[in-house]
Amino acid sequence: RPLPWGAGYAEVINAEKSEFNEDQAACCQISIRRREPGLEEDEEWLILCSTQFLTGYYWALFDGHGGPEAAIIASNYLHYCIKQKLEEVVGGITEAHPPMHLSGRCVCDSDPQFVEEKHIHAEDLVVGALENAFQECDEVIGQEMEATHQRGGCTALAALYFQGKLYVANAGDSRAILVLKDNIVPMSCEFTPETERQRIQHLAFLFPKLLDGEFTRFEFPRRLKGDDVGQKVLYRDYFMEGWGYKTVEKADLKYPLVHGHGKQARLLGTLAVSRGLGDHQLKVIDTNIEVKPFLSCIPKVNVFDFALHDIKEDDVLIMATDGLWDVLSNKEVAHVVRSFLAENRTDPHRFSELAKCLVRRARGKKRGHQWMLDDSQEASYDDISVFVIPLHNRDED
Amino acid sequence: RPLPWGAGYAEVINAEKSEFNEDQAACCQISIRRREPGLEEDEEWLILCSTQFLTGYYWALFDGHGGPEAAIIASNYLHYCIKQKLEEVVGGITEAHPPMHLSGRCVCDSDPQFVEEKHIHAEDLVVGALENAFQECDEVIGQEMEATHQRGGCTALAALYFQGKLYVANAGDSRAILVLKDNIVPMSCEFTPETERQRIQHLAFLFPKLLDGEFTRFEFPRRLKGDDVGQKVLYRDYFMEGWGYKTVEKADLKYPLVHGHGKQARLLGTLAVSRGLGDHQLKVIDTNIEVKPFLSCIPKVNVFDFALHDIKEDDVLIMATDGLWDVLSNKEVAHVVRSFLAENRTDPHRFSELAKCLVRRARGKKRGHQWMLDDSQEASYDDISVFVIPLHNRDED
Repeated sequence: RPLPWGAGYAEVINAEKSEFNEDQAACCQISIRRREPGLEEDEEWLILCSTQFLTGYYWALFDGHGGPEAAIIASNYLHYCIKQKLEEVVGGITEAHPPMHLSGRCVCDSDPQFVEEKHIHAEDLVVGALENAFQECDEVIGQEMEATHQRGGCTALAALYFQGKLYVANAGDSRAILVLKDNIVPMSCEFTPETERQRIQHLAFLFPKLLDGEFTRFEFPRRLKGDDVGQKVLYRDYFMEGWGYKTVEKADLKYPLVHGHGKQARLLGTLAVSRGLGDHQLKVIDTNIEVKPFLSCIPKVNVFDFALHDIKEDDVLIMATDGLWDVLSNKEVAHVVRSFLAENRTDPHRFSELAKCLVRRARGKKRGHQWMLDDSQEASYDDISVFVIPLHNRDED
Repeated sequence: RPLPWGAGYAEVINAEKSEFNEDQAACCQISIRRREPGLEEDEEWLILCSTQFLTGYYWALFDGHGGPEAAIIASNYLHYCIKQKLEEVVGGITEAHPPMHLSGRCVCDSDPQFVEEKHIHAEDLVVGALENAFQECDEVIGQEMEATHQRGGCTALAALYFQGKLYVANAGDSRAILVLKDNIVPMSCEFTPETERQRIQHLAFLFPKLLDGEFTRFEFPRRLKGDDVGQKVLYRDYFMEGWGYKTVEKADLKYPLVHGHGKQARLLGTLAVSRGLGDHQLKVIDTNIEVKPFLSCIPKVNVFDFALHDIKEDDVLIMATDGLWDVLSNKEVAHVVRSFLAENRTDPHRFSELAKCLVRRARGKKRGHQWMLDDSQEASYDDISVFVIPLHNRDED
């Protein structure tokens, strides 16, 4: 089936290097049923007469770990959770300042003023709905996985075009960027054990039992060993952005809560991401230590308002799992996007072709036993999924 | 005594409107004793031979609440805590990459590589020292206040010039900005119940007992009342940057944990700041609810590297308590700074005069019973303290 807006999509399974794909993608139109404000649910005959629909467009990528199951459930349910959460607040969405009461009835004369003072806009309700939808979806995944005795989790990156604005909600290490004619606009940031170190260490400080005596919450440049005991070594605690020196005790020799650097960074030696959906049953291998308390399912939502920008014909949103971004920088991706679209003006499938082109670039070419990039760097060995979403001829609703 | 660098300072007590000044200021040179790396403490005769000193310059503002006592103790101790924490790590500060072991001895051949991979620089040790110094100073204040049966707390804004870099550490709602020839560089951000809502609500979610059944952790645009029960009203929980609608229950009628807007925002109906020193004994009036668990004494540290900037003759650092920033924006302050310094090129006391000028501008003029600004806005009724620190002819050390 054609993607909305003629968007392009491409994926490759572990760069064809293995047989399992843990990435999942989803996209669809979301119709949000709107009720006439001021009507109660018992006035259903009126509701039926006045039902209208608001239309949203949705694209999402899920990068599974510990199996594809969580990513599959998320790809089947997240859009429904979003639809549901938007419908719950739709009465407040169509006005510039949402009413204090969803019913629209004014309990207190100065209510509109309170709402205005807090700078609450329709856009904030959409952001809140996305935040709540991720939480709801995480619960659904937890139930489904428990019922079917499956395990695993996934990252989630979702884009929603709604009422003239683009919302990008991210929980994990996928990434979305806008490639515009003159600049690149990052629409997400990555949540990894490294970027969320302080939040994770703080939880361990507040609830030391979560580590069950097996891990140390302190960060050190490397794992310590017996020779380090009694010495002062570089360390960071939860409240520190800077570094200090700590006299090493025997307890510091335990495995660190957050350990490793860059792509090797791990939470509890187990997970490479700190936000996402699922992982309700995940335990640190050979222990009873649960990973889920340290994970967050809440996305950070970024908003792009089309009314404030002059969108050009080749401007696109690129969404991709870490398989792409591990080997290509934002700049490199933007360069490929701009030159590809400039060279392929008339191809009706240019956005799909561009998605394939990006995937091919990150997968590299096989030379002997290795997959290499054009510049002889090692290629991505991960699954790679890419959405290319044109922004110019977007549907008007 | 003259301020280092010919810096200027001015203060006014409650704009001369009351008799108590809760602001305190401090500034001094900090000499950090440096030991030859590789020497143990038992080789003290060698240490004595090779002692050298590194010099730092320090300016700080403290805005007290519930009395001036905490601010006074902080102004007497924080520089000492900073000196102490810097001396503890000085062995690692003088090298570009601090050694893994403070002793300089290499336990593991690849230690320098681990440190480099983590991007740990000398500057991170200074940041860590400042973070630890604030925590230490908070403990000292707690002990002093308990011993002398005093109460109260204070914000803390500290600037340290050290090894060619300016470090600004802030815990509270004071502010520091660099006014340069062509731009304004904010060197701090404010920590208030409003800016730290999510951190505060999250603590209440994790430890509901802290609210003792007297407060609700949810945020609403206004305090709810009986008429709101059963209705869906706008709300935010700890995980939300956006807003949603919540069906009001009776428990939601409790006083909100974070309430009010802008300068009226309060934590537990009690405090207007969410970070600072002291307040160890502070309880919500007529209850046993402690405020301290929700406060943080950890500063956010911003660094400005002079080696990366061409500093002009009239470039200055402005530090001031909220008394100034409540009525003058960064832009307005920068305008006053630039025009005053341009008009007073030769006055040897121009930086002090500028500090006085800024204080006078924020205090306004008395018209009838009111203090008014030039543009007929109401003037600041708070204490106002201002440092003007020239950056061009800074001492070299």
